[in-house]
Amino acid sequence: MDVGTLVEQARAGRPRAVARLISLVESAAPELREVMAALAPLTGNAYVVGLTGSPGVGKSTSTSALVSAYRRLGRRVGVLAVDPSSPFSGGALLGDRVRMQDHATDPGVYIRSMATRGHLGGLAWAAPQAIRVLDAAGCDVVLVETVGVGQSEVEIAAQADTTVVLLAPGMGDGIQAAKAGILEIGDVYVVNKADRDGADATARELRHMLGLGETRAWQPPIVKTVAARNEGIDELVDALEKHRIWMGEHGELTLRRQRRASQEIESIALTALRRRFDHLHGDQRLPALAQKVADGQSDPYTAADELIAGITQL
Amino acid sequence: MDVGTLVEQARAGRPRAVARLISLVESAAPELREVMAALAPLTGNAYVVGLTGSPGVGKSTSTSALVSAYRRLGRRVGVLAVDPSSPFSGGALLGDRVRMQDHATDPGVYIRSMATRGHLGGLAWAAPQAIRVLDAAGCDVVLVETVGVGQSEVEIAAQADTTVVLLAPGMGDGIQAAKAGILEIGDVYVVNKADRDGADATARELRHMLGLGETRAWQPPIVKTVAARNEGIDELVDALEKHRIWMGEHGELTLRRQRRASQEIESIALTALRRRFDHLHGDQRLPALAQKVADGQSDPYTAADELIAGITQL
Repeated sequence: MDVGTLVEQARAGRPRAVARLISLVESAAPELREVMAALAPLTGNAYVVGLTGSPGVGKSTSTSALVSAYRRLGRRVGVLAVDPSSPFSGGALLGDRVRMQDHATDPGVYIRSMATRGHLGGLAWAAPQAIRVLDAAGCDVVLVETVGVGQSEVEIAAQADTTVVLLAPGMGDGIQAAKAGILEIGDVYVVNKADRDGADATARELRHMLGLGETRAWQPPIVKTVAARNEGIDELVDALEKHRIWMGEHGELTLRRQRRASQEIESIALTALRRRFDHLHGDQRLPALAQKVADGQSDPYTAADELIAGITQL
Repeated sequence: MDVGTLVEQARAGRPRAVARLISLVESAAPELREVMAALAPLTGNAYVVGLTGSPGVGKSTSTSALVSAYRRLGRRVGVLAVDPSSPFSGGALLGDRVRMQDHATDPGVYIRSMATRGHLGGLAWAAPQAIRVLDAAGCDVVLVETVGVGQSEVEIAAQADTTVVLLAPGMGDGIQAAKAGILEIGDVYVVNKADRDGADATARELRHMLGLGETRAWQPPIVKTVAARNEGIDELVDALEKHRIWMGEHGELTLRRQRRASQEIESIALTALRRRFDHLHGDQRLPALAQKVADGQSDPYTAADELIAGITQL
């Protein structure tokens, strides 16, 4: 099937076409460039929400509850579950994400899991392109959920219009929060499992820590939810809408999307340049330089200069 | 003080000169290139051992015990404690690494903590250069210890001649191990806290999992230690020496060091190219391209092509 037909079918809401397009971009298939060029004029409509937080805070449950809430509002929803520690991708491999199956038969919901481990350039490379596919396929909202921890959280924040940071009571999240730098990335904070002991204390501690920094133009709200019982989810959707409107009024949405595009372009360009390094003079230039550095005949900076001189002459 | 004098003093074992050199490379000071060029002919002697493992396995205690063991053998030892989650660097900020203070007054030991969070290019960029300084300063052994978890573990392995993976009984490390990919990176495995329940089970499970893969030229040994009581440390040093000798005999040491130099050169070259992107046409080209992509007038691949065309004309 040609790319044009695939894109047309994806626009019409055919899940198989969407799946095929994501697989194409994920596998860096030869058609990738053609796909991206065909999608470009169709993008820019989806509101991209990133959900992040430590394991056990209820990211998957919250994502599922958000899907239901947006569906009640008549929105088409895409879900991208990104697992940086897994080598497995695909719609069928959602692991223990049972709750998501509530939406499996809803044609207004597209759910995709995506592995980034081992990916060339990791998350920075693969996720934005999948978001682009979901956007072009007509999703009004794309929820990007990280499965796992660490650096990826910060990267997800860079991909989203709005970043939701989830916490749960009594997980020692206060200290964790400061460490992982989540206090800098959240636009909206959620204290999930708010029916548990310590929820108020967690919210209070969080509010205190958020207040410590310099005054912000946008003061991130803290929403208490019990996602498993659907409590507080409408309030979360309200908070997201407020942030979205605020971003629109303050030029922040444009700014974030430009920054995102900028990083994406840079990442693709660097990958292409790295490929040029590898191919340089039949794979011989870089190993020869490395040998000289390993032997102490040259230093890495001088060698890097020579490498750059090599590719810019190509 | 000029770079030549600093290098000379570092060679003579003056810790202040070593500290100053590492600070220079860490801060990407203007003298960086001069420093690297001056160090190049003095490098290649140190045996670089990476120590990695989950928090709580006793990395710091094991590192300290290894320092003592190598000192008894008359070797000069450098320790680089890399914390990817911390923005703080410097010899004074070793946090709770109290055990390291045993060596604070030993002129044959140089200890340095290094933060990589927020660093341009992270660990890949900063650590190899600090290792280079310690190598040139005459350290026979450089122990590189990661404080923290995640991707950095794999990166550390790429910097070391020999990678030691530490585990402890009953930490659920079995599953963790497979997940973090540590079964692929270890040259020597340590089950520390071997006086605890479950040490034999952990070693057995590890041996089983290591045996599952294809046959390896080097079969990684598993050493049981109680680092806090100095038990098994001589055996660990023996295992390291065996791996070092094996690598020398099989050309593996040369290969790894070349690979290391290659990655280092590439990383520096990519950083330099990224800087060119930023400076391109007075900071205007990339934002303009990003705007076009964000507006759907172009796609990221076409934009990346234009970006590359721009820098290769410089």
